[in-house]
Amino acid sequence: MNFEQWMRACATRTEAALEQTLPSERVEPARLHRAMRYAVLQGGKRMRPLLVYAAGEAVGAAEAVLTQAAVAVECIHAYSLVHDDMPDMDNDTLRRGKPTVWVEFDAATALLVGDALQSLAFATVCQTGQLALVQELAEASGSLGMAGGQAIDLASVGQTLSRPELEHMHRLKTGALLRCSVRLGAWLGRALTHEEKMAFDQYANAMGLAFQVVDDVLDAEADTATLGKTAGKDAAADKPTYVSLLGLSESKALAQTLRHEALSALKKINSDTSRLANLADLIVLRQH
Amino acid sequence: MNFEQWMRACATRTEAALEQTLPSERVEPARLHRAMRYAVLQGGKRMRPLLVYAAGEAVGAAEAVLTQAAVAVECIHAYSLVHDDMPDMDNDTLRRGKPTVWVEFDAATALLVGDALQSLAFATVCQTGQLALVQELAEASGSLGMAGGQAIDLASVGQTLSRPELEHMHRLKTGALLRCSVRLGAWLGRALTHEEKMAFDQYANAMGLAFQVVDDVLDAEADTATLGKTAGKDAAADKPTYVSLLGLSESKALAQTLRHEALSALKKINSDTSRLANLADLIVLRQH
Repeated sequence: MNFEQWMRACATRTEAALEQTLPSERVEPARLHRAMRYAVLQGGKRMRPLLVYAAGEAVGAAEAVLTQAAVAVECIHAYSLVHDDMPDMDNDTLRRGKPTVWVEFDAATALLVGDALQSLAFATVCQTGQLALVQELAEASGSLGMAGGQAIDLASVGQTLSRPELEHMHRLKTGALLRCSVRLGAWLGRALTHEEKMAFDQYANAMGLAFQVVDDVLDAEADTATLGKTAGKDAAADKPTYVSLLGLSESKALAQTLRHEALSALKKINSDTSRLANLADLIVLRQH
Repeated sequence: MNFEQWMRACATRTEAALEQTLPSERVEPARLHRAMRYAVLQGGKRMRPLLVYAAGEAVGAAEAVLTQAAVAVECIHAYSLVHDDMPDMDNDTLRRGKPTVWVEFDAATALLVGDALQSLAFATVCQTGQLALVQELAEASGSLGMAGGQAIDLASVGQTLSRPELEHMHRLKTGALLRCSVRLGAWLGRALTHEEKMAFDQYANAMGLAFQVVDDVLDAEADTATLGKTAGKDAAADKPTYVSLLGLSESKALAQTLRHEALSALKKINSDTSRLANLADLIVLRQH
């Protein structure tokens, strides 16, 4: 199976599992469930599930538990997008090429969709039977992780951030959940040495930042149709970005440096990590 | 120790543990942490922690794990209040005698406070070491529990609900987390027979409904100062209540019936359940 086929297989498996995990639209409260499904299904690159599978398969984790972990991180990611898009936050109307949840339904429903997706993520990660994974997901999502990063992001509008400050924000806002995805996959396989655990984290940290740098580059360069969400939004909102801080070409160079960091971390893992390497290439070379 | 002293001891222990569990205001993002602490500390009746302790002590659970469970359910409860008060939901400005979080801070911060408190609840319940408790908390909080009840509540504004529909809404909206509180406590002690497990649930289900019936009675009768939140709010918002459905005196009679149901369920538990009995009295006889 080549990388393309592997990615399609992972995405198909994730989609089927999400479909199964999310309550049916026929179950009350039906409108909430319809909105939850709208927020999650048929959308997104499923980057976090891909990281779960790639890390987990490298160390021989079983497919069934990887899928539960993949669904859990994707539910956390989806909830964060639903809340971030709300009028009180980024006030965004377009996401994954569709109206955002608060536009398609209403703001109160969007609030509850996010809340219920977070609960669902924790119910699902419990299915792995590993308390350490639940704990990791909770910490990656909370005020010292993703939600904290969003708070720093909000406070940074109109501010001049230094590069360390910008990096810190992104390490929390997107980095924490990406690292969590790699960890969940890696922890579900064979026993790891301390050095291997560190290497997975180094890979994930580099990829988390690279992901954001590339997002900023794409946001500055791409048009709305290609991106599937409102382009140029961060600059318009006067939010600090890597492009505004470093310029376009230095940002691109940084993404490459981070990619090389990620790839050299993988060499310390005593397994076939080629899917993770492919994902590093994909994240840095993607066009949307 | 009499019941009053026991309640004060539980509340003090809960408060100290919440204080410890919530990140300090000196930790970044400081404003988010300040708002989380504002939302949780020094407020509320701590009814859910009391249920955790009362159920757990009846079956010999250790104090340390009960406290972790108590903190977790209280963080879920606090997050739900922060989100319910937001302009997109109930648009409430007063809670526990203080300005609500979105008024004191802002709506975006309130959104993140709720999100981060939910994550913190799951991180904390993991400390009990019992995956079954995490799972129960996730299910009680989600779209088939508390968040689902809130969705039904929103959809019911201006509607005429039948008594079974009103009951179903409250079983989810407040009942699910109250039952979860009793379960978490009960599951942390000695092994239970199937009949005892059912009895804890029967107690909790009756208490959950009674709690809501009494809330509706108090909302109809009390003034804002005594209640510490805006009184008459539900009637003004054209929300169905037990009082609007059954009238005041039949609502009071229902609360008494539910109290007797709860007390007779306790007789099936082969332990000293006097604290749970006292709580049933407290819930039904409280004035705010």
